[in-house]
Amino acid sequence: MKLETLSETACFGGRIGFYRHHSAVNNCDMQFSVFLPPQAQQGKVPVVTFLSGLTCTEENFMVKSGAQRVAAELGLMLVSPDTSPRGENVPDDPDGDYDFGHAAGFYLNASEEPWSRHYQMYDYITAELQDIIFDNFPGDRNRHGLTGHSMGGHGALTIGLRNPGLFSTTLHSPWGEKALGYYLGADRSTWTLYDACEVARRVQDVSHWSRILVDQGNDDAYLADQLKVPMLEAACEESGLPLDVRYHDGYDHGYYFISTFIEEHLRFHAEQLGV
Amino acid sequence: MKLETLSETACFGGRIGFYRHHSAVNNCDMQFSVFLPPQAQQGKVPVVTFLSGLTCTEENFMVKSGAQRVAAELGLMLVSPDTSPRGENVPDDPDGDYDFGHAAGFYLNASEEPWSRHYQMYDYITAELQDIIFDNFPGDRNRHGLTGHSMGGHGALTIGLRNPGLFSTTLHSPWGEKALGYYLGADRSTWTLYDACEVARRVQDVSHWSRILVDQGNDDAYLADQLKVPMLEAACEESGLPLDVRYHDGYDHGYYFISTFIEEHLRFHAEQLGV
Repeated sequence: MKLETLSETACFGGRIGFYRHHSAVNNCDMQFSVFLPPQAQQGKVPVVTFLSGLTCTEENFMVKSGAQRVAAELGLMLVSPDTSPRGENVPDDPDGDYDFGHAAGFYLNASEEPWSRHYQMYDYITAELQDIIFDNFPGDRNRHGLTGHSMGGHGALTIGLRNPGLFSTTLHSPWGEKALGYYLGADRSTWTLYDACEVARRVQDVSHWSRILVDQGNDDAYLADQLKVPMLEAACEESGLPLDVRYHDGYDHGYYFISTFIEEHLRFHAEQLGV
Repeated sequence: MKLETLSETACFGGRIGFYRHHSAVNNCDMQFSVFLPPQAQQGKVPVVTFLSGLTCTEENFMVKSGAQRVAAELGLMLVSPDTSPRGENVPDDPDGDYDFGHAAGFYLNASEEPWSRHYQMYDYITAELQDIIFDNFPGDRNRHGLTGHSMGGHGALTIGLRNPGLFSTTLHSPWGEKALGYYLGADRSTWTLYDACEVARRVQDVSHWSRILVDQGNDDAYLADQLKVPMLEAACEESGLPLDVRYHDGYDHGYYFISTFIEEHLRFHAEQLGV
C-alpha cells in the first residue's frame, strides 16, 4: 500500500498530516488526515477515529473541532477519513444535491449500480483503512475508539455496534437519518444493517458497552425532521444498551457545537481506552 | 446604526454571532463576528479584537482558532472584523490575485482612486467599528486588546502602536509584509503610517507597552521572503519597545499554528487587561 503524504505540519506539539492512497474497495483514490500526539514519539498510542457528516472532507474535523489540544494532552491519535469516494469516475448525485453521492457515502456498502462500484465505505472504514492506519502510524490497534457527527455519528453507531471487537468505544454527536434506499435498493430488509436504531435494537451482548454517549443541540434545525433521537432511545432501551443522550439548549448542528463538546467525548474515550 | 443579525448560536456556554451593518467610512455593507462569554450575562467584559489575514472573512478565526474555549474561561469577548470592504461595487484586484482588494484591505486608509472610495479599514477598525461594538454588545471600552495573524498581525501592530489609548494591549502572530503602494500611491512618505517597522521605530513613549508578543513558525513558507521579523526586532530595539518574538520549529503559517498558540495570547491579554 503506497501512501502519499500531501502535507504535514506541527500542531499542539504533535503533527497533523494529510494523506492519499488508492482504495481497492472504493476503486478510487481516498484521502484521510491523522493527528499524532507528542506521545507517539515514544511508542504506540490509542486511537480515536472521527467520522464526519454530509458535505465534509477529511479536513473539516481537523480544522474546526479543536480536538488536537485535548488529544495532545491525553496522548490520543486522531484519524479523520473522507466521507465518500470521489473523483471524475465516481458517480455523484444526479440532481447535484449535497445529501447523496460525493461527501455523502453514509458509511455503507452500496449494492445497487452504479453506486456499488465505488461506494463501499463500510468495508473501507472497517477493513481497508484499518490496515493503512496501523501499518503506517504508531497507533495501538487494540485501543481504538470511534465517534462522529451527523451522518458520521450515525455511521459510528452502526459500525461500532456491529464491530465490538474492532472498536473499543463508540460514541457520537448528533447524526442525520437519511434514506438509504438509493444505495441499497428497494429491499428494505438490507437497510437494517445500516440503520442505527435497528442495529441498536438487535445487539445481543450489551455487556461490551458501558456507555454510549450522544450529545444533541436543542436548536438543531434537523432535530425534528431528520434526527430520530427518541427512536434511538427506544431501541437502546429495548436491547438494554446504556445510551446516554444529553440535550443542550441553544446549540445547533454546526461545528461550534462540536468544538464545545469534543473535549468531553475525547476524555470519555481516553478513560474507556485505559489512558 | 442598524445592526442586522445573520446568525447566533451557543458555543462553550456563551454565544457566537455574525452581524452585518452599513459602513459609512467604507461605503458598503460590512460583516463581523462576536463571541460573548458566559460572563457577559452579568455585565461588561474585557474585549480582544482579532484582525485576520489575507483571504479571510469574519468567520475564519471563529471557526478555526478554538479561541472561544479560553475566552469563555477568562470572560473575554472576542471580535473578528472582515478583512476588507466587499461587494459588487467595491473594486477588487484587477488581476484577480488574492493579495489585494477584497479580503486584502491591509487595515489602512487608501488615498488613491478607485480604492479610496471604499478601502478605509484603518478608520473602520479604530473608529466606526468601535462604536458599533460598544453600543451593541456588553464589552468594556476601557479594557480592549488587539491581536491578529499575518496581514492582521501587521495591522494589529500598526493600529495598536498608533492608538495606545484605544487598545490596552497589542500582540500578534506572524504577519505578512506586502507592498502598500497600490492603496497609498507613489509617495512613500505616507507608507510609514502603515509600516509596522516604521511605526515601531517612531514610538516615543514606550512605557505604555510592557510586552509585545509575537509567535512565528520556523516552517512558515512566507518567513524568508514576506515576513521581515528581524527588521521588526531591529526597529523595536531602536525605540526600546519590549518585543518578545518566539520562534517555533515545525510550525507553518496556517491555522494549526494559530490554534496551538492562541491560548497563550489570550491569557497574556487577560493578564494585561486585569482579568
